Amino acid sequence: MSSHHIVREKQEPALIIANGEACNDELLGQLLEWSPFVLVLDGAIDRVLSLGIKIDVLFGDFDHGNKNFEELKTSQFPIEIIHAPDQEKTDLEKAIEFLIERDFPAANIAWATGKRADHTMANIAILPKYSSLIKLKIVDDHSCIFPILPLPNTFTKWYKKGSIISLMPVGEATGITTHNLKYPLNGETLKLGYRNGNSNEAHEDGQVQISYQSGDMLIMECKD
Amino acid sequence: MSSHHIVREKQEPALIIANGEACNDELLGQLLEWSPFVLVLDGAIDRVLSLGIKIDVLFGDFDHGNKNFEELKTSQFPIEIIHAPDQEKTDLEKAIEFLIERDFPAANIAWATGKRADHTMANIAILPKYSSLIKLKIVDDHSCIFPILPLPNTFTKWYKKGSIISLMPVGEATGITTHNLKYPLNGETLKLGYRNGNSNEAHEDGQVQISYQSGDMLIMECKD
Repeated sequence: MSSHHIVREKQEPALIIANGEACNDELLGQLLEWSPFVLVLDGAIDRVLSLGIKIDVLFGDFDHGNKNFEELKTSQFPIEIIHAPDQEKTDLEKAIEFLIERDFPAANIAWATGKRADHTMANIAILPKYSSLIKLKIVDDHSCIFPILPLPNTFTKWYKKGSIISLMPVGEATGITTHNLKYPLNGETLKLGYRNGNSNEAHEDGQVQISYQSGDMLIMECKD
Repeated sequence: MSSHHIVREKQEPALIIANGEACNDELLGQLLEWSPFVLVLDGAIDRVLSLGIKIDVLFGDFDHGNKNFEELKTSQFPIEIIHAPDQEKTDLEKAIEFLIERDFPAANIAWATGKRADHTMANIAILPKYSSLIKLKIVDDHSCIFPILPLPNTFTKWYKKGSIISLMPVGEATGITTHNLKYPLNGETLKLGYRNGNSNEAHEDGQVQISYQSGDMLIMECKD
């Protein structure tokens, strides 16, 4: 058994490294701290290898040139290299579905924002689609983004007063009710591009509650 | 009359500098080349001043500390400083509405992406709302983003073969029909987060045409 090989019980979220802007080293270090299962999208592979990160899966359609897979198989042993050519889905969607098939209950997603805006927006927008199947969180230097499920679920989390909490509908979210936000909502509808819930914040130290009736909604915890 | 003062006939697009990630100097230089009317959101003012850019309007709710407006009024004379405290709209929305009131037919928007993901997503998503009133374009190092109007309008532009053209619905866009794209659409619907039109491309050198029936759609010209 390679010294790389760690038996995991899938208690830690897996880590997907997508092909956007790299996050800062400290954040990446935190995400790697508990030796998560690491899946890298092919567009990021060269930058990830240069950081000396042990990879479990390399994933993509490999349409940007030929990689030296033999060298990779040796240096990163054991590694799975998965060719996913489906043009109807983005590489990130395919990677998430791979983790769902492998029964991972949760995944953090790094490098999913920055660089190309079409990738950024698509990467963020697909989170709700999977929210009943796997817990997903996109993290970058300024933001932590995750979907919340509609009623009967209620999102509840402790925040320090003044913490920025943006409510971001993907399309539309109806019947939104909040507790302990500075700008409270009471059964209202948010619609992307027309009425967002940007830059709301925790009113007091304590539990913030957010629920909504239908549609898709993301929470974005952000800092300047 | 100050040497800064240039009589403009509003033929050039105005330039809004928002408070996201700075773009590269070359792009900013291109945007400033024809001495556009420059409107800066308050979150970016210190970074903009450090670049020695002549500003026409400083705009925002000024909720992040006190600026030394007197010094600014002298060093940037003539400058308008506009306090826009409306909490229902983002600073970028208010800035766009200010330019519409001033009869600007077009504006480029720089520094609107990067840093906080809630700002990025909101900034991109508001473009369609104004598309019948002013021509808007968000530009960053990797992307050029603009809304297109639904039928009877048809978007037509010459592209080189292989140019990346992402079709990004804000919410939903129906009845999309394309000509000269590698992955053609024929009356189909795109829905953000569920079916995007990411990473399409010009099939051959020549005119690309895109039309749609209803909803909101952005074009994103992107490069890696």
